[in-house]
Amino acid sequence: MATKITIHSPATVANMVCGFDVLGFAVHQPYDIMQLEFIDEPGIVIVNTDAYNLPTDPTQNVAGAALLALMEAYEQPVGFKMTIQKQIKPGSGVGSSAASSAGAVFAANVLLDHPFSKEDLVRFAMNGEKLASGVKHADNIAPCIYGGVTLIRSVFPLDIVKLTVPDLFVSIVHPQIEVRTADARSILKQQIQLKDAIKQWGNIAGLVAGLQQGDYDLIGRSLEDVLIEPTRSILIPAFEQVKQVSKQLGALGGGISGSGPSIFMLSTNEYTAKAVELAMGQIYAAIGLSYHTYVTTINTDGIQTIDLS
Amino acid sequence: MATKITIHSPATVANMVCGFDVLGFAVHQPYDIMQLEFIDEPGIVIVNTDAYNLPTDPTQNVAGAALLALMEAYEQPVGFKMTIQKQIKPGSGVGSSAASSAGAVFAANVLLDHPFSKEDLVRFAMNGEKLASGVKHADNIAPCIYGGVTLIRSVFPLDIVKLTVPDLFVSIVHPQIEVRTADARSILKQQIQLKDAIKQWGNIAGLVAGLQQGDYDLIGRSLEDVLIEPTRSILIPAFEQVKQVSKQLGALGGGISGSGPSIFMLSTNEYTAKAVELAMGQIYAAIGLSYHTYVTTINTDGIQTIDLS
Repeated sequence: MATKITIHSPATVANMVCGFDVLGFAVHQPYDIMQLEFIDEPGIVIVNTDAYNLPTDPTQNVAGAALLALMEAYEQPVGFKMTIQKQIKPGSGVGSSAASSAGAVFAANVLLDHPFSKEDLVRFAMNGEKLASGVKHADNIAPCIYGGVTLIRSVFPLDIVKLTVPDLFVSIVHPQIEVRTADARSILKQQIQLKDAIKQWGNIAGLVAGLQQGDYDLIGRSLEDVLIEPTRSILIPAFEQVKQVSKQLGALGGGISGSGPSIFMLSTNEYTAKAVELAMGQIYAAIGLSYHTYVTTINTDGIQTIDLS
Repeated sequence: MATKITIHSPATVANMVCGFDVLGFAVHQPYDIMQLEFIDEPGIVIVNTDAYNLPTDPTQNVAGAALLALMEAYEQPVGFKMTIQKQIKPGSGVGSSAASSAGAVFAANVLLDHPFSKEDLVRFAMNGEKLASGVKHADNIAPCIYGGVTLIRSVFPLDIVKLTVPDLFVSIVHPQIEVRTADARSILKQQIQLKDAIKQWGNIAGLVAGLQQGDYDLIGRSLEDVLIEPTRSILIPAFEQVKQVSKQLGALGGGISGSGPSIFMLSTNEYTAKAVELAMGQIYAAIGLSYHTYVTTINTDGIQTIDLS
């Protein structure tokens, strides 16, 4: 019986342009490193080994809140020491809080010998998201736990579908500005035009069909958001330029990662993805804004166990 | 070189519950029988061999309007005699006008030795839909021409995707009341809630994934329409009862066919589909409304050439 586990919990990209609140995918880079081990004293001890100075009170820490939900469902008294080395910058828009929340419950489920389903783990982890943003959303949590591209068909009741996905390279740029998820939510119009919604569900249907059929052209044509992006992109400097230049360089398409400020672009090959990454950086360098870029691929496994002892 | 063609042009079900204006599928029954042959005199001569007394002036007949659009694009003078034996009742909501429009241009394209693509044919046929309902929509035309379940990702520019589809049985009831497409359109709210739209695109994404993966349960869970059905179903007597009883009998789900008044239900097997058909009939018999029912399957070929000479 293992008493200690080390995992890599990956970054995730929510929304995927036309799939606001329902689609998300996991990537290979970056990821948080988390360690969970049993301790004698019931409860949770949190140790942060990174520079982000996140709360160590379990009720105020997203990983703690998720783990508390799991422990409540487990019903027997149990104690964990959780060591978090966060490498996904909080607030960057690539699922930093989801990686912590999902990682905590994934690791505990392994140590407890799998009493819970993946769906249960998503439910527990959503408590972390609620603490982070006020909303129990699963579009980062689900791909983190299931891997690949996931569809949250419904949150109540929870219905998660893992989609087939062809090889895709992902270029991400994180301009170093702050976009609070709550702000990005509050600027959205709550009333929309039916004709715009029809375009949006035509596109999400096209994107799902394109992913399932491995049709890159269809994926590219479907990566269009007529509803959310026009409003939210205002919060992200140079957004239109990044998108336009990336497509000129051969990217299939892309958009805001989650509620931003990171922007992602999908490409069919590494060469294009690296050219896109370079151009993204040059755009922010030119306007004098700090940024961070990387190229990665879609992570079809989600959270990975690195060591179990 | 053939000079005469006979085709079967099938009925189609538009919208498919959560895919308003973008999804549609073709069925094997009923179908119109159409014959097209070259005549010496340039122009179109329409002969109706059914009891519906539809216009024979090509500019006033949906098949004529579609064929005129094709002939204009063909640019060389050509003459056709078109004989239509309509078996799909006009106004029943299973694509009667689309069968005529699509059938006419499909047949002409064969006789002219295929100068046009399927996409071109959809464009020509939409002129028939415009004459019938005032709107150039393709959600009946596309499945009629492509077969199976089709997605109209976009109308301008036209982007049609044929989806993979598992075996499905279709029960249809046509209560003999009149619902004008224009009325069914005018009662729709043009402003909708973002949260409802999110549910709808979660469902259409689930439906497309379910069809592509052959996951019957997922198809059933996704056949939910929170936006259009609550308004339109008011025009169809006993709609809720038909839906509820069909599901109790084991149907995966279903809803209004196009803008109604026909209602369709999908089942995984013929036994269930026939039980659903029987129950549909009993419901309308009990309220004293004339009706017509049938059980059919999804037609993955679309329009079929029966004779070419």
